[in-house]
Amino acid sequence: MDHALRLARRGLGNVWPNPAVGCVIVADGRIAGRGWTQPGGRPHAERMALDMAGPAARGATAYVTLEPCAHHGRTPPCAEGLIRAGVARVVTALTDPDPRVAGRGHAMLRAEGIEVTEGVRAEAAAALQRGFLSRVTLGRPMVTLKLATSFDGRIATATGESRWITGGAARRHVHLLRLTHDAVMVGAGTARADRPALNVRGFGPVRQPVRVVLANDAIPPLPPEDADHGPLWVLPGPPAGALAELGRRGITRVFCEGGGHLAAALLAGGLVDEMVGYTAGVLLGGDGRAAVAPMGLAALADAPRFQLAETRALGGDLFHRWVRAGA
Amino acid sequence: MDHALRLARRGLGNVWPNPAVGCVIVADGRIAGRGWTQPGGRPHAERMALDMAGPAARGATAYVTLEPCAHHGRTPPCAEGLIRAGVARVVTALTDPDPRVAGRGHAMLRAEGIEVTEGVRAEAAAALQRGFLSRVTLGRPMVTLKLATSFDGRIATATGESRWITGGAARRHVHLLRLTHDAVMVGAGTARADRPALNVRGFGPVRQPVRVVLANDAIPPLPPEDADHGPLWVLPGPPAGALAELGRRGITRVFCEGGGHLAAALLAGGLVDEMVGYTAGVLLGGDGRAAVAPMGLAALADAPRFQLAETRALGGDLFHRWVRAGA
Repeated sequence: MDHALRLARRGLGNVWPNPAVGCVIVADGRIAGRGWTQPGGRPHAERMALDMAGPAARGATAYVTLEPCAHHGRTPPCAEGLIRAGVARVVTALTDPDPRVAGRGHAMLRAEGIEVTEGVRAEAAAALQRGFLSRVTLGRPMVTLKLATSFDGRIATATGESRWITGGAARRHVHLLRLTHDAVMVGAGTARADRPALNVRGFGPVRQPVRVVLANDAIPPLPPEDADHGPLWVLPGPPAGALAELGRRGITRVFCEGGGHLAAALLAGGLVDEMVGYTAGVLLGGDGRAAVAPMGLAALADAPRFQLAETRALGGDLFHRWVRAGA
Repeated sequence: MDHALRLARRGLGNVWPNPAVGCVIVADGRIAGRGWTQPGGRPHAERMALDMAGPAARGATAYVTLEPCAHHGRTPPCAEGLIRAGVARVVTALTDPDPRVAGRGHAMLRAEGIEVTEGVRAEAAAALQRGFLSRVTLGRPMVTLKLATSFDGRIATATGESRWITGGAARRHVHLLRLTHDAVMVGAGTARADRPALNVRGFGPVRQPVRVVLANDAIPPLPPEDADHGPLWVLPGPPAGALAELGRRGITRVFCEGGGHLAAALLAGGLVDEMVGYTAGVLLGGDGRAAVAPMGLAALADAPRFQLAETRALGGDLFHRWVRAGA
């Protein structure tokens, strides 16, 4: 299953509105087939792995990171594919909360006499498929908020100078995170002030993330959609409504890069699932520009809290990733 | 030498105005004696190691983290002690920059036919003895500045609530760092607002650090010196002058715990040698209280820069340590 989870990870940011799934087919103790959800969401992981395994799938065990689908969409359901291929056993990590599946995939397999084991590495799978689960259960994508700041939490000097606070390795890492999200989002102020490209650079030809600008008024023109720039969606606020709209459009993972007002609104609304910080070893002082706008907290107990998931040096900067407490 | 450096570390914060030195005596491939500078600065590391080695020191090799002293102070010079004990070889990490020594210790040993090897693990020794070196060469102690903040660099909510942003493990770690510094320092504003104890708690009976308050006016009474509280020194500004006075009084390592104005003044003056950060996974927003007061930087290039030395999780918080760039 760990192998299947690693395969699934390849699809993050690349397969919306579908979940990023991984599948490994093991026959006689050897890997006969491997698959992961392909760009755009099709073929599914199981189809790819079954095609690779061919006749070896008969009597084999399939490890899948999510319950195989049971509904006829643009492709036949994967549960049917596994049955036809003659696998003897299916091991899954999560039940698919999509109401069109929701246990029916598992039931279809069992009805055909296939042994089904559920819930293997469920926690790791839930973390990986957090965006998909958020969209299905909460109706909105998961939100990752990035803050790239000085040691003292500033994003620019008092005079507005911000290039560069963090180093090249951190900036390249930001592009990697854009690549693993379906959409990159900024507020109107950032769109006006920085005219950001919001695309992925330095990783060759890739499926560019959707560019989302939350704005109630007109914003200056940004580059049109092309090979180097994803679709541009300008959505009116409030942020909760805009995220619901993104969910309706199929977005599962959003990477928010500011500015301070959007960050504050998302945090205050409990809409941030993960925080990633790039902290530079530079100090700009209290007159520098704050990374997060005023939140008007009445008490410390009301402040949003996150749990540390990862920290390491990244070039000359400090990288740290946090997950919402209790999530 | 690595063993001697680990022994030397035991003296940090405990031996001012003397350097924290470690000494290992190796005879016939075995450790015959180990020593480190004792609380208050005496006996010296070499004396302790020689006493432990006894007759085994004859013909042995002594590893010392700093050039043995050559001057008669309250105790006979260590170079003389090594000569009398009959050691055959002395390996040192650093030349003592103290003008009363400055190579004369090495010369005394060589004049008696002892083989001397200098500069072994010099970089690690210089980092360890940074406070002592700073006092001798710059006339001021090294300064470690602590910032314990929210993810967005705040030390309290807009309403002034600050207990607790960081968790118990981080707060206990602060006491460990107080213990390894000669003095703990705050500005007048913090002394007035928080009435801080500025002592080491939770580590049993220890040599308490000197408490330093930088204030030009009267401050409210703080606890008098006793077994649980070090001497209280109230010094007038500016910070550079106060640090020079601390150097004259023998202090080699100062741990500064704020507030924001003192932090900004030290940073702007290039007087901070190390930064330690405790970052909590909580966000307080731009109306929260800033950790560092305005610095009035004209350009990003003028901002003080530090290099990341260490990062790790500490309880639920993030601990990170940085060293001044180019230092």
